[in-house]
Amino acid sequence: MRHILIIGAGRSASSLIKYLLEKSDAENLHLVIADLSVELAAKKTAGHKNATAIALDIFNETQRKAEIQKANIVISMLPAHLHIEVAKDCITYKKHMVTASYISEAMAELDTAAKENGLVFMNEIGLDPGIDHMSAMKVIDEVRAQGGKMILFESFCGGLVAPESDNNLWNYKFTWAPRNVVLAGSGGAAKFLQEGTYKYIPYHRLFRRTEFLDVEGYGRFEAYANRDSLKYKSVYGLDDALTLFRGTIRRVGFSKAWNMFVQLGMTDDSYIVDDSQTMSYREFTNLFLPYHPTDSVEIKLRLQLGIDQDDVMWDKLLELDIFNPNKIVGLKNATPAQILEKILADKWTLAPEDKDMIVMYHKFGFEVNGQQKQIDSKMVCIGDDQTYTAMAKTVGLPVAMATLQILNGNITTPGVQLPMKKEVYEPILRELEGYGVVFQEKEVPYFGYNPIKHS
Amino acid sequence: MRHILIIGAGRSASSLIKYLLEKSDAENLHLVIADLSVELAAKKTAGHKNATAIALDIFNETQRKAEIQKANIVISMLPAHLHIEVAKDCITYKKHMVTASYISEAMAELDTAAKENGLVFMNEIGLDPGIDHMSAMKVIDEVRAQGGKMILFESFCGGLVAPESDNNLWNYKFTWAPRNVVLAGSGGAAKFLQEGTYKYIPYHRLFRRTEFLDVEGYGRFEAYANRDSLKYKSVYGLDDALTLFRGTIRRVGFSKAWNMFVQLGMTDDSYIVDDSQTMSYREFTNLFLPYHPTDSVEIKLRLQLGIDQDDVMWDKLLELDIFNPNKIVGLKNATPAQILEKILADKWTLAPEDKDMIVMYHKFGFEVNGQQKQIDSKMVCIGDDQTYTAMAKTVGLPVAMATLQILNGNITTPGVQLPMKKEVYEPILRELEGYGVVFQEKEVPYFGYNPIKHS
Repeated sequence: MRHILIIGAGRSASSLIKYLLEKSDAENLHLVIADLSVELAAKKTAGHKNATAIALDIFNETQRKAEIQKANIVISMLPAHLHIEVAKDCITYKKHMVTASYISEAMAELDTAAKENGLVFMNEIGLDPGIDHMSAMKVIDEVRAQGGKMILFESFCGGLVAPESDNNLWNYKFTWAPRNVVLAGSGGAAKFLQEGTYKYIPYHRLFRRTEFLDVEGYGRFEAYANRDSLKYKSVYGLDDALTLFRGTIRRVGFSKAWNMFVQLGMTDDSYIVDDSQTMSYREFTNLFLPYHPTDSVEIKLRLQLGIDQDDVMWDKLLELDIFNPNKIVGLKNATPAQILEKILADKWTLAPEDKDMIVMYHKFGFEVNGQQKQIDSKMVCIGDDQTYTAMAKTVGLPVAMATLQILNGNITTPGVQLPMKKEVYEPILRELEGYGVVFQEKEVPYFGYNPIKHS
Repeated sequence: MRHILIIGAGRSASSLIKYLLEKSDAENLHLVIADLSVELAAKKTAGHKNATAIALDIFNETQRKAEIQKANIVISMLPAHLHIEVAKDCITYKKHMVTASYISEAMAELDTAAKENGLVFMNEIGLDPGIDHMSAMKVIDEVRAQGGKMILFESFCGGLVAPESDNNLWNYKFTWAPRNVVLAGSGGAAKFLQEGTYKYIPYHRLFRRTEFLDVEGYGRFEAYANRDSLKYKSVYGLDDALTLFRGTIRRVGFSKAWNMFVQLGMTDDSYIVDDSQTMSYREFTNLFLPYHPTDSVEIKLRLQLGIDQDDVMWDKLLELDIFNPNKIVGLKNATPAQILEKILADKWTLAPEDKDMIVMYHKFGFEVNGQQKQIDSKMVCIGDDQTYTAMAKTVGLPVAMATLQILNGNITTPGVQLPMKKEVYEPILRELEGYGVVFQEKEVPYFGYNPIKHS
């Protein structure tokens, strides 16, 4: 039996564990599923004979080292900042390691040691980062193979609610960490490259500079810019590309409506609201509106944001009940962002029968034989249920597949790495198709921003 | 001779030194003016027989202690964070101390030691903080003396260009630290109290929620909210006041125009602009505008901000030359805020003959004998020239006056304090009138926000 140690049995581990258990007899695998909560770990084993659930506190060095020593390979599904101690132990005991997280500086520093010991430390092999890298590099490599030169790369991803469960005016529910949704884009300007010019969008305008994306069978989406679109310039070998843009996908209308909260100041996470615990939703809303002796909170908000009475934006606010004088925030020393998250969670929490959806969309612009061409690549994945969500599948399956490929000696290049190589992405993308993660690639007319070069 | 040690001979020390030198024969004073630059210190002595200029590095402990030991009283005009070592030495050698800065936590901790040694540590006795405290407490004490109860306190202050030197479309020039002007209000929401309700304004809306102020003989001004208006609630004994607001004064139209920079993202100080050194003003402006293949930077900016061709806002931008493709930023690794400061400094630097102006405006609302009343108190001070500016006078004169009062035993209450007591503010406000710092107090009809109590 080959032992796989999986540290962290949270939401994103479900599909990962299911995949490996299904292969466990044929592939001779035994899983040790370790979590601070042994109950959570046990639930994920589903009583399977090839799995053992254990309680593990990763700050307990003795136990951590002992478990890592016993394994053939280690998967860390811990929060990103907790990988490093595990990684150091993997060097010590010569174990391969797989994570779905961005490579931290501390992790990058282990590269030489991993290479010297012939160890594969595969990172960023979840959804985003992960499937985005692999599906993009596949097309970029194909473009280069035909002698093409990349001039534009735009890449979008979003975690949304599936169409069959999409029953609110925002066309949105929390399918992942709500706090990250509330704070999305805050804390600095978004930076990208458009036709060779750097562009910066301040946070308070971010949600008003969106672009539309059409996905056959799923209709129209929109995307707002991510914080830093230039991160992968060098990693993807796109130093000559004139346009680099990464964005977050939402249903059309979400950003315009979300911008109301940004404009009011409700997404601010930098200060504590006085008396937050006993405050009503209505009082919270009123904090951000000028005083008026007779105008109601509703009238003041409408005036402040210029919302007509028959505007659907207004209905979106009403749906969230932000004018309710009887609902109490109930959070002690909370920031506006924390209070807003609470208000949204009342309405945007997935119902037990709800399904989620992942949408990914890449645009590749390139020049070949003097011609400008474009390929669009799109993927939609729908969750099975609340355990095997689209998010759990797209984050967990590539991790599981990479783990097995490493164990079986199909991925062998040592070092701290992300999945940029054909030997990695090709078999995994192919296998993902069997699980409903299918990219539709299509050549379309080139849609650059610059038919005639100008400012 | 009584020795006064003045540490820091910068712009704000000019009027302070002039005042004390004028009194030096009659009051038997000798000034030691200490600065890192002995040339700067010497310039401020103006060759006066009762003054000595010395070079002093306050981080040179031996020299610092030696100079403090020789003095009868110490004035620190250093930047606020540098006072504390001087203050500790003043405790050691039992010297009174005067500063124009806010009381830091470290300074507050010296209160017991100062009291035990019978030392007056007077702080916040410049303009703002300083004259604001004194002129406000005078009226608040008078209201209380007639049995009134304070229900509203609004206080505004601004450093502006004098009407005779006001010759640009912004009606503004840099009369003090330009960086603070560019960053004003950034870094968090403004907080105040209006008719018993907390109110928060996010930075990107701060300059659109101004109020007008009329000053007889000087016309109309406007004010935007300061960061935290509740700071003096307890210090002023205003715990029962329903409205507390502090703001910064500008000429009407400044805030609306400044908001253009805020909306574009040009006041952001949180990131470095790529290639800032070689960039033109025009390229800088274009960073914040969406790409367009044919529209010019001008057209894109106008569309983005909705500025009509005949709007004076447009002329204000043209005056600053922000579309100039030939003017180069020339700052290495600069933030947008630093670049904007550079662009503004080209146009907003005071000419040698220009004069500055300080405007202060308080509103006091109170109830007495069942009636609501209001007193408005206004002060305008014009600078003499570029050395004895209105800013230097209003910051330095109260410091100098307090120093002499302490030396002469008229201010004796020991401890770390700000000028809230009648024994302090009364003689100083009276003396300031002789130097053109005159408050016009006037009873006006009560102008609360709440004729009939509502949300």
